[in-house]
Amino acid sequence: MLHGKSYKEPRMPSLELYFEDLYPGRIFELGPKTVEADEITAFAAEFDPQPMHLDEEAGKKSLLGGLAASGWHTSSLFMRMMIDSYLLRSASEGSPGIDVMEWKRPVLAGDTLSGRSVVEAARPMRSRPHIGIVAFRHELENQRSEPVLLSTNSIMFRLRAVEGNAA
Amino acid sequence: MLHGKSYKEPRMPSLELYFEDLYPGRIFELGPKTVEADEITAFAAEFDPQPMHLDEEAGKKSLLGGLAASGWHTSSLFMRMMIDSYLLRSASEGSPGIDVMEWKRPVLAGDTLSGRSVVEAARPMRSRPHIGIVAFRHELENQRSEPVLLSTNSIMFRLRAVEGNAA
Repeated sequence: MLHGKSYKEPRMPSLELYFEDLYPGRIFELGPKTVEADEITAFAAEFDPQPMHLDEEAGKKSLLGGLAASGWHTSSLFMRMMIDSYLLRSASEGSPGIDVMEWKRPVLAGDTLSGRSVVEAARPMRSRPHIGIVAFRHELENQRSEPVLLSTNSIMFRLRAVEGNAA
Repeated sequence: MLHGKSYKEPRMPSLELYFEDLYPGRIFELGPKTVEADEITAFAAEFDPQPMHLDEEAGKKSLLGGLAASGWHTSSLFMRMMIDSYLLRSASEGSPGIDVMEWKRPVLAGDTLSGRSVVEAARPMRSRPHIGIVAFRHELENQRSEPVLLSTNSIMFRLRAVEGNAA
């Protein structure tokens, strides 16, 4: 019997990845994730209701060649892949934005995406010495190994040393 | 009574905006859109389940200062604002990506976003003479007129002249 304090389901796995763990050259695998037609149309109905994202026939008539995910949907699925691969077990403090996001090819219903995030650079912030900023290059391909998404961005992480956690 | 052909609900409003209508300096207003807490947590649960996007207390403890929308959620809401302002009544053929996306400030539950898309440049494509590419600068502010999102990207549009539609 518990008393004197309440029990809470753990919200996150324990933090394994601090700034110090994100050294240039480190690679995190992303996916695989198969994108289903009903996911494509549900996202599009809310955020990007253009015909080529809602309807197979309209997609075939468009430059995209079939029922195609909104680029914002592909980007959001990419975010979820980062979460599942490394961000949720990291001391992330979020990101100031995206430097580049290239949607290289359409993502069509049934496509399976996988890829990687590669650490390109890392430095402590001057303005916030307990935070470091890590520059990543991100790549996703489809099941034919064709590039579908390329992106670079920076993400902020707390320093292990400052939090007093042993490596 | 209809016979010989089936009736379909119109999927889109008639197209008013072709490449020729998107001249440098033209401005399209975006929003306003108030971002509710339940929208923030629903998007986060699917695409970006970090504590500061799921829980008010966790948000307050983070750099973001409260229950804050995922940057990808803010970006997707911005897409919807473009749809409602001009894209759905345009001859858009989609976008090759995003050149820059800056999340300048957190978007917190209850914030109201508005802004604008400004045409910066427009040119016909060499490889596809029936398509032109239009470069935009996009800006969103919150209800205190503080910048929250800045972005630049290019969007492809069909030419009116090629489709034989009168202006």
